[in-house]
Amino acid sequence: MNEFELIARLTQSLPTNPATVVGPGDDCAILDLGLPDRWLLFKTDAIVEGIHFNATAAPDKIGRKALARCLSDFAAMAGKTTHVLVTLALPAKIDVGFIETIYGGMNVLAARHQVAIVGGETTTNPERLLISVAVLGTVQKGKCPLRSAAKAGDAIFVTGELGGSRFGKHLDFEPRLAEAAWLADNFSIHAMMDISDGLAGDLRHVLNASRVGAELLSDAIPVSHATKLAAHSEPSAKPPILAALTDGEDFELLFTVASHDAVPLLDAWKDRFPALRLSCIGKITAKKGLTIRDKKGIRLLTEHGYVHFS
Amino acid sequence: MNEFELIARLTQSLPTNPATVVGPGDDCAILDLGLPDRWLLFKTDAIVEGIHFNATAAPDKIGRKALARCLSDFAAMAGKTTHVLVTLALPAKIDVGFIETIYGGMNVLAARHQVAIVGGETTTNPERLLISVAVLGTVQKGKCPLRSAAKAGDAIFVTGELGGSRFGKHLDFEPRLAEAAWLADNFSIHAMMDISDGLAGDLRHVLNASRVGAELLSDAIPVSHATKLAAHSEPSAKPPILAALTDGEDFELLFTVASHDAVPLLDAWKDRFPALRLSCIGKITAKKGLTIRDKKGIRLLTEHGYVHFS
Repeated sequence: MNEFELIARLTQSLPTNPATVVGPGDDCAILDLGLPDRWLLFKTDAIVEGIHFNATAAPDKIGRKALARCLSDFAAMAGKTTHVLVTLALPAKIDVGFIETIYGGMNVLAARHQVAIVGGETTTNPERLLISVAVLGTVQKGKCPLRSAAKAGDAIFVTGELGGSRFGKHLDFEPRLAEAAWLADNFSIHAMMDISDGLAGDLRHVLNASRVGAELLSDAIPVSHATKLAAHSEPSAKPPILAALTDGEDFELLFTVASHDAVPLLDAWKDRFPALRLSCIGKITAKKGLTIRDKKGIRLLTEHGYVHFS
Repeated sequence: MNEFELIARLTQSLPTNPATVVGPGDDCAILDLGLPDRWLLFKTDAIVEGIHFNATAAPDKIGRKALARCLSDFAAMAGKTTHVLVTLALPAKIDVGFIETIYGGMNVLAARHQVAIVGGETTTNPERLLISVAVLGTVQKGKCPLRSAAKAGDAIFVTGELGGSRFGKHLDFEPRLAEAAWLADNFSIHAMMDISDGLAGDLRHVLNASRVGAELLSDAIPVSHATKLAAHSEPSAKPPILAALTDGEDFELLFTVASHDAVPLLDAWKDRFPALRLSCIGKITAKKGLTIRDKKGIRLLTEHGYVHFS
């Protein structure tokens, strides 16, 4: 049983209540506590030493990453973050300066997005540092793009470039909050999520939730420079297109819009965000399954996002 | 530098925003997101294997405890919990049945309090199980008893019995949500908190926040049966009164009311909650410091809650 199968099994029996609009399964939970025009968004995310960062990483970047991952989930819902609680589970020997620097990295990012850090706790995890962040925020009712809202014929977009985040970007990526808010304000965004487990795997979540398929265009997928460099210098590295499809922690936006919105959106984007690439990488299909088209034809992407290139 | 000094230092520089009513330092953060008559309450709490529970504890009780600790913090604010996110950081070798039983324990408690579990995540913590719970809820504006609201002359109350929680109660205590709601509805509660680090230490948080002192009556402090048993059978055990003052994880309510409310409150309590002891254990004083009165006179309780009995 993998992580997703476990989660599916656990979520079947979770208690719910009438104030829950969307429970487990999207980037954030959506709650209706009675605000006239807004829903609440609620999300937690944890990073663990040795898994999401190395002990040698700069502590301010570790703190920044812990918060930025949650902000990226809020971007995926076109939401606004308002309040954060931070749990630091610390080995006993970590010094106060280290902890203050972790908070320093978080504080800068939080302040930039007008997010208040309103508490949390420090506890003990003897063998390794673990940081869990809980975030609360809001989104305009009816303007929250769910994973389940992709429609056959939609154009599929991604922001930025994909792959090779582990070479550095995973510690200083920019959560796409401003871009997502602009998208939701100016276009009818169907489905949206942030890419945290690799484009192929995460797009599959959208397809499953929306009960559709997709066809990607290999040439249109924006491959990061870091990935190309790695392929040059390391003969054992993944081919760049495979890295772009399957590497984790890109934290870019993946979204779909009706096909007639695709060109106006690309034009408006270039005016508004000239420094950030936006790529139309394929289309949603009524036929289920995830395929990729390149010069050699159309191939199926396998369950775990890997495509076997000949 | 101890935990409280570290927290004090970290919280000085945290970013805030106008929607924050009370940030770090009380049982929950209090937020105003625009609901006409209610504030939001926001809280996280984590438990760690080997620290807050042993690997031999029943997994349903581990899960129950993780949630119950947060519910107890909501009780301390006279709040209502609405939504929960659960982070399980798991050693790789834990099996699915174990995880499902952890959730089983949480689900029963959540359902009983109409709390929806709306997601969270599973991640990896190779050496030990860690569960972090984030809870959201609401409280009626102006009916939220803060730690800073104790006044000289107030009577000090505690629910239940204190000490010896580690002998079993820490895994199946009842968060005092109904009792706290009734108190806030029927009396003007000044300060309130839940006792998690021991009566003497936690009362000191109230005194510091309220800039007052307190005098406790040794004979009035409700000492748990478990603590008396332990003192009988283990010559090295703490004297029961010392255990009641300093043992952690009681998860009872500690609150203050104006002295003229003390007797009516005790009478009404006996009618409403006949099965749960309520004790008036002393009074708030204008003079700072925490003292305890017994047959031998008045003594100061030391910084860490320990009193040296001759």
